[in-house]
Parts: sequence; structure tokens; C-alpha cells
Amino acid sequence: MRPGIDVEVHEVGPRDGLQSIPTVFTTEAKLAWIRAEAAAGVAEIEVGSFVPPKLLPQMADAAEVVARAREIEGLTVSALVPNFKGATNGFAAHPHKLNYVLSVSEAHNQSNVRRSVQESLDDFARIIDYRNADPQLRDIVVASGVATSFGCTISGPVPVADVMRVAEGLLARGADELAVADTVGYGNPRQVKALFTELFATIGSDVSVVAHFHDTRGLGLANVTAALEAGVRKFDASLGGLGGCPYAPGATGNIVMDDLVFMLESMGLRTGVDLDRLLEAREIMETSLRGEPTHGAYAKAGPPKGFVPASAVAE
Amino acid sequence: MRPGIDVEVHEVGPRDGLQSIPTVFTTEAKLAWIRAEAAAGVAEIEVGSFVPPKLLPQMADAAEVVARAREIEGLTVSALVPNFKGATNGFAAHPHKLNYVLSVSEAHNQSNVRRSVQESLDDFARIIDYRNADPQLRDIVVASGVATSFGCTISGPVPVADVMRVAEGLLARGADELAVADTVGYGNPRQVKALFTELFATIGSDVSVVAHFHDTRGLGLANVTAALEAGVRKFDASLGGLGGCPYAPGATGNIVMDDLVFMLESMGLRTGVDLDRLLEAREIMETSLRGEPTHGAYAKAGPPKGFVPASAVAE
Repeated sequence: MRPGIDVEVHEVGPRDGLQSIPTVFTTEAKLAWIRAEAAAGVAEIEVGSFVPPKLLPQMADAAEVVARAREIEGLTVSALVPNFKGATNGFAAHPHKLNYVLSVSEAHNQSNVRRSVQESLDDFARIIDYRNADPQLRDIVVASGVATSFGCTISGPVPVADVMRVAEGLLARGADELAVADTVGYGNPRQVKALFTELFATIGSDVSVVAHFHDTRGLGLANVTAALEAGVRKFDASLGGLGGCPYAPGATGNIVMDDLVFMLESMGLRTGVDLDRLLEAREIMETSLRGEPTHGAYAKAGPPKGFVPASAVAE
Repeated sequence: MRPGIDVEVHEVGPRDGLQSIPTVFTTEAKLAWIRAEAAAGVAEIEVGSFVPPKLLPQMADAAEVVARAREIEGLTVSALVPNFKGATNGFAAHPHKLNYVLSVSEAHNQSNVRRSVQESLDDFARIIDYRNADPQLRDIVVASGVATSFGCTISGPVPVADVMRVAEGLLARGADELAVADTVGYGNPRQVKALFTELFATIGSDVSVVAHFHDTRGLGLANVTAALEAGVRKFDASLGGLGGCPYAPGATGNIVMDDLVFMLESMGLRTGVDLDRLLEAREIMETSLRGEPTHGAYAKAGPPKGFVPASAVAE
């Protein structure tokens, strides 16, 4: 956490948003977005993923985007990898942080990366070993997503004990951070508060934990409120909620970055993000869309009269 | 609270929603909506307001709607009145509950009902006296809205002490219930939890208190989560979030009834509402719209796989 910040927000739209829409952003369009959002004060951005271009042509330029995003001062550049092969490509591009991901649900993990959960844990151990064996890679933080932590589109409810087991398995293998994800927008505030409370009790409150929510059923910010109550201070989100697609039930949007920042700042929690400049970044991102909808209420309604963001008070 | 219910939801769309959109629903269209939503299990519906038809032609049939809605078994029928004159008309129609409203903000109250807050409190005392003087009216519950409790479009922030003073003033004059309202969608979860906590400490936890949120800046359900933490168990909402209008900044939608019920039921809180039948009621309501948008994520996404509503467990 940077000094003067109460809650850290991570932009994941250039990865999670862009992988869910038909329009392919050019490399320049991605970088214009990333630069504008970094300038608004967002300190960490997941800029792409290392997956076969055949599967996700949107991510074919990940190495170049990582390299050029790294030139932005003060920005933590992360990238997602689904397996060992992707990780070796990811390490070669040298982001600040590599985000591995596996699903707690066996069925979802098989469907997503064609591996059992145990095999994905084994892969994660190889990734950590690969980094640790190479002095030039040791500065790269390796995080892991813990997907389907709140339910699964294939197998339904996911036991909390399974989430704890996977979280402990990842930490035992050397994960520097966990991103506990409601991949398909199944979570509710009671469940969120209970799960994060149990997680911190299980793994300790000093582990870096990010909450990753989707707004599929409208509960995204309510879940953030519940996660805050449980002690979470890092959240993923996507500018304009990019990625929500009414035609593809599986491709649902992250919570809206602009609304998230407004909520946190109005609650007196400093994010270090300037809302006006964030909306400018949103407009820059939107110029590259080809009819895909964006989301968010703050961008339409504007600030309440007399609103003073927490970050502005601190300055 | 009815037996077997943990949280009570009140539909306000036939009043708060319809007053904010250009389309005028016919009396039959209103009743079809009200009947369908009552059949889904919503136990209280604000069916209209007693205001000059010149100002709000949408509400000209309020007396007839009240009379016919009262024929629906088990439904609590409420209607809004802004002043003493409206209240006498309201009493004549004999709803189960009359909802008076005044604003904590002087500027907003002047703009809304052309009275000082003190004058509105005096009016409320006359309304209570009027009811108490007539044995035939004594079964009518008189509630009051406490509008702009979380901020005002004219004067900005509203001091919590003012909210407490108005709430106590209403109770001292005989209010049976308070509906504490974020009239313009200014509230945030921290503020909501703090205000309701202080309110219950001030007026006691046995007073019937309803929270009335608008989703203007996307924080509606997050604010519900915070209000639940503070002990609130009654919420206003509008089916499909009717009333949100992107062309009129002042006319912003209530929180979405369907999403609210989904959230509460998924949290294990029984509302007594059947979500499938609620969506049927939504479709009935939507057939009368002329291009006005509705809102809500649950109606698009449907239930999570394996979802069991709390009310279904209880049956």
C-alpha cells in the first residue's frame, strides 16, 4: 500500500474487460487508456494476459503492452497467466506482478484450464520455482487468483473449506498475494463478509488479499461494503464496468471502477485516485469501443453537491 | 412485520416511479401491476399520492387506486401526502397507511412544499389531530418520510443533528413510523450505518423505521447492506428501478426491488417474496411503459446455479 492510501484499487479492464468483448483494442488504444488511468492515480493495472493468441487475439500484444506500460512512472504493471507455459512468456515480458489463476471449483478449473485443482497447484509451485531459480526474475511478485470462491456456474455452491484449502495451498507454494474472486457474480454481502473473515482467521491478516467482484446480479458494491467490514483493503475493478455483455451470460462485467472510487472516497477512504481524471480516462477508453456498452452511475450523475473526496482532504 | 419474515420490502414505484416518468399509467395498468406484485408476496405498496392533479396528472386517480387496491387480500395499501390538504383527501380515500413527507433541509423543504421545516412539523401535528378526532380514521397508520437525510441538491451536506431533531419532532407529534430517505442518492455506506446507528440510539430500537434509498450513484444496495448492519429491517424499493431518468438529473430511480429481494434472499433474510412471480409482475408493469428504461441486474442474469431463496427454505 502506498503512503497516504487507505484502499488500493486495481484496474483489470485491459485484461478482464477486453477479453469479454468482440472489439479488439489496438496496442496504442490500450496504452492510451492505461496511461490516462495511471495519470488519474490508479496505481496498479492488469494490462493483459499470456494466453495463446488463437484463443484470445485481443491479448496477442501482451508482451509489448507490458514493456511499454512499464515506462509509466509509479505504475505497477501486472499480467495474467493461466498455466506454466503462459508464466514463462509472462516472466520474459517482465511485468512487476504476475497473476496466476485457478478455480476452487474442480469443474470450472477443468473447463477453464483443463487441469484438476491439484494439477493447477502443482503448476503454481513450478512457476514459483522458475522465478526463484532466475536472479533476474526475483523482483517479480507472483500473485494468484482464487476463482469461483463464491460459487460456480457449473457446480453451483462452492464450500468455504475448499476456498481455504486452495488459499493455503497457494500460500504454502509461495504466493505473494491472493485475489479472491467472485468470477461469475454469485456472492452476496453476508457470504462475502463471512468468507473474508474466515480467510483472514485462517491465513493471517498480514497476507496481501485482493477482492475481485463482478456485478452480474447488481451486488458488486454491496459486496465491497461487506469485504471492507471484514478488513479487505484491495479491490479489482474495471473502468466503466467494461466486459458486461448482455448477449453472453458468461461474460459479465467487473464492478465499475468509477463507482467504486466514488464510493470509497465518499466513505472517507483515500484511494489516491482523482475522480475527474478517472472520468477523462473513461472517455479515452470509450473512444475505442465499437458499440459495446459501458456501465456506472457516477459517470452519469456526477458528484453530490458539496462532495469532497477523501483523497482531496488529505492533500 | 408479518410472521416468517426477516426483512420487509415496500414497493413505492406506483408513486415514486410513476411521478418521475412522462408516461401516465391508466388506473387499470396501475392495478394490474399492484395486483401482480402483491401476488408475488410484496406486503406493502405505496399506490399513489394526494397532490393537485395540475401538478402531477399521473396521480389524479389516487383515490380510486387506493379503494381498489384495498380489495387485495393481505396487502397494506399506503399513499403519500405532502401537506394537510393532501392528508384530508388521503384520509377520505382510507388507505391503511398515510405517508407524510418533509425534508430535513430547509431549502429542499421550501422548494418541495413551500414551507419551513417547522411549518411542516406543525402541519404534521394537525394531520395527527385530524385523524385522532375521527373514530373512523383511527385505524389509519400515519408515517412520515424524513427526506434529504443524507444530503440535499440545493444545500449540500445535511447535519446528522438536524435529522435527529426532525425525527424526534415527528415522533413527538405522533408519527407511527419514519421513512428515512436518501432522496437524491447522496448517501454512502459509512454514512448510512452511522446515521441509522445514531437514530436507533436516539429514538429507541422499537420505533418502526424504513430506509428509502435511490440508486443515483450506484450505491443503493451497498447502502442497504450498511443499513442492515445498523439494524434496519424495512426498505422501500421500486420494481425495475422505475423512475430513473437519464434526461432529468432530479428524477432518479429508487433502488431496484428485484435486485433488493434477490440480495436479501441470498443473504438468508426472508422477504416473503417469490422472485419468479416478482419478475412476472415486472413484465406486467413494463407493458405499460412507452420507452422509459427499467433497471436491474437480476432480471437479466437470473439466479445463480443452485440458488435457494431464504423464503423457500422456510416454507
